[in-house]
Amino acid sequence: MTYCVALKLNQGLVLLSDTRTNAGVDNISRFRKMYTWEDPGNRAIATMSSGNLSITQGVTNRLSAAIKRAEAGEDVETILNAPTMFRVAQLIGETMRDMQERHRATLLEQGAGADALILVSGQIKGGDHRVFMVYSAGNFIEATEDTPFLQIGEHKYGKPILDRVITPETSIGQALKAVFLSMDSTIRSNLSVGMPLDLAVIPANEYRFSTLRRIEPEDADWQALSNGWAEGIREAFEHLPEVELG
Amino acid sequence: MTYCVALKLNQGLVLLSDTRTNAGVDNISRFRKMYTWEDPGNRAIATMSSGNLSITQGVTNRLSAAIKRAEAGEDVETILNAPTMFRVAQLIGETMRDMQERHRATLLEQGAGADALILVSGQIKGGDHRVFMVYSAGNFIEATEDTPFLQIGEHKYGKPILDRVITPETSIGQALKAVFLSMDSTIRSNLSVGMPLDLAVIPANEYRFSTLRRIEPEDADWQALSNGWAEGIREAFEHLPEVELG
Repeated sequence: MTYCVALKLNQGLVLLSDTRTNAGVDNISRFRKMYTWEDPGNRAIATMSSGNLSITQGVTNRLSAAIKRAEAGEDVETILNAPTMFRVAQLIGETMRDMQERHRATLLEQGAGADALILVSGQIKGGDHRVFMVYSAGNFIEATEDTPFLQIGEHKYGKPILDRVITPETSIGQALKAVFLSMDSTIRSNLSVGMPLDLAVIPANEYRFSTLRRIEPEDADWQALSNGWAEGIREAFEHLPEVELG
Repeated sequence: MTYCVALKLNQGLVLLSDTRTNAGVDNISRFRKMYTWEDPGNRAIATMSSGNLSITQGVTNRLSAAIKRAEAGEDVETILNAPTMFRVAQLIGETMRDMQERHRATLLEQGAGADALILVSGQIKGGDHRVFMVYSAGNFIEATEDTPFLQIGEHKYGKPILDRVITPETSIGQALKAVFLSMDSTIRSNLSVGMPLDLAVIPANEYRFSTLRRIEPEDADWQALSNGWAEGIREAFEHLPEVELG
């Protein structure tokens, strides 16, 4: 499985993904699930994916191949020349649909799953910073004020902390803590989600990544936060009054 | 859906279930999922169930009907005269298998689900206090020292807090806080789990329920704990240092 989360805050976008994939519990591998594209000062775009890895890698490869063709002078629409984030989400949705058309029937015939989800986050000069979730069918939804975060993969373990603290007004500093703790709870409770992590931050109206960082298990910041949270939770728990029993 | 949790601690058994069932989000009802049987000083047994409600209610009805027949003098094995908790789990497993044989094929034919799970907890004089999880096929597993709690239904939201605090040595007082907080996180994040709750405690080697309590949303203990925890989590979160970004 996978766990990826994208926050859409007034201050910008905060994105975090794990890197574990598995085909059964006895076949665990490490694969990057976050891909980023940047034209600093003009656009910054990131995708994070869950589901069938051959499908999502196929989508990413096609997006990159289109960019190379455009760079070579071919007249082709890509996520680096699309005019809006909405059009970027559409392009990724169309690529997803192509991949599904190519492989879905055979995969299902053989008892494998073909479903996949892609979180598309970013900002293009002239538009807002936005987060979309692209489904297997190529359709998509968007994060809004009411739901300022979208999750894919093993989203349940880490949802309570996000529900408690994330609003559009949350600062990027606080949001980083929240996504780390959300990931920490997930990793502790589910073997199919694992380190290292990929973190990206796109500040609003800067059209660039202010942070692109791989976080290894021995990362000092990660460990301080994980241990501090374990300690904080235990203390909060100890300080709660015991329940009187009727 | 449902959320039920059973803790097997050195001090005894702590059981908590919600009461929400739904057939689609537009058909939400309240059904008791916890059933208890007691012969004070000799045995105390509780079941909690998830999955197809007609199946699990059918199991409960058959268990009760057998008890009535035995009370009327018939020579029939029931969960109130079975010699051990292991045999009780077997009887419930056999009843589950009968119900599945009767209904499963037709249910699946019509596109409905027939799966169900029953947590069987209790202690009979002469044996230990034990917790079993009975599957649709009638087979079952048991909570052990290594895994002192079993959950059914929407178990993911509330697992991190249990993973963090529950060991066999946890006191019943602390355990009550933990199961309430586990339920609180689940209810906040998932519409298909809802109040009121049913709580039961079976202290080790007393063969009786020391607590059997329905907890309504306006219950003062519940509200104090839920609000205190929200406050405690927020404080722990605020006190964590912000992450330095590389």
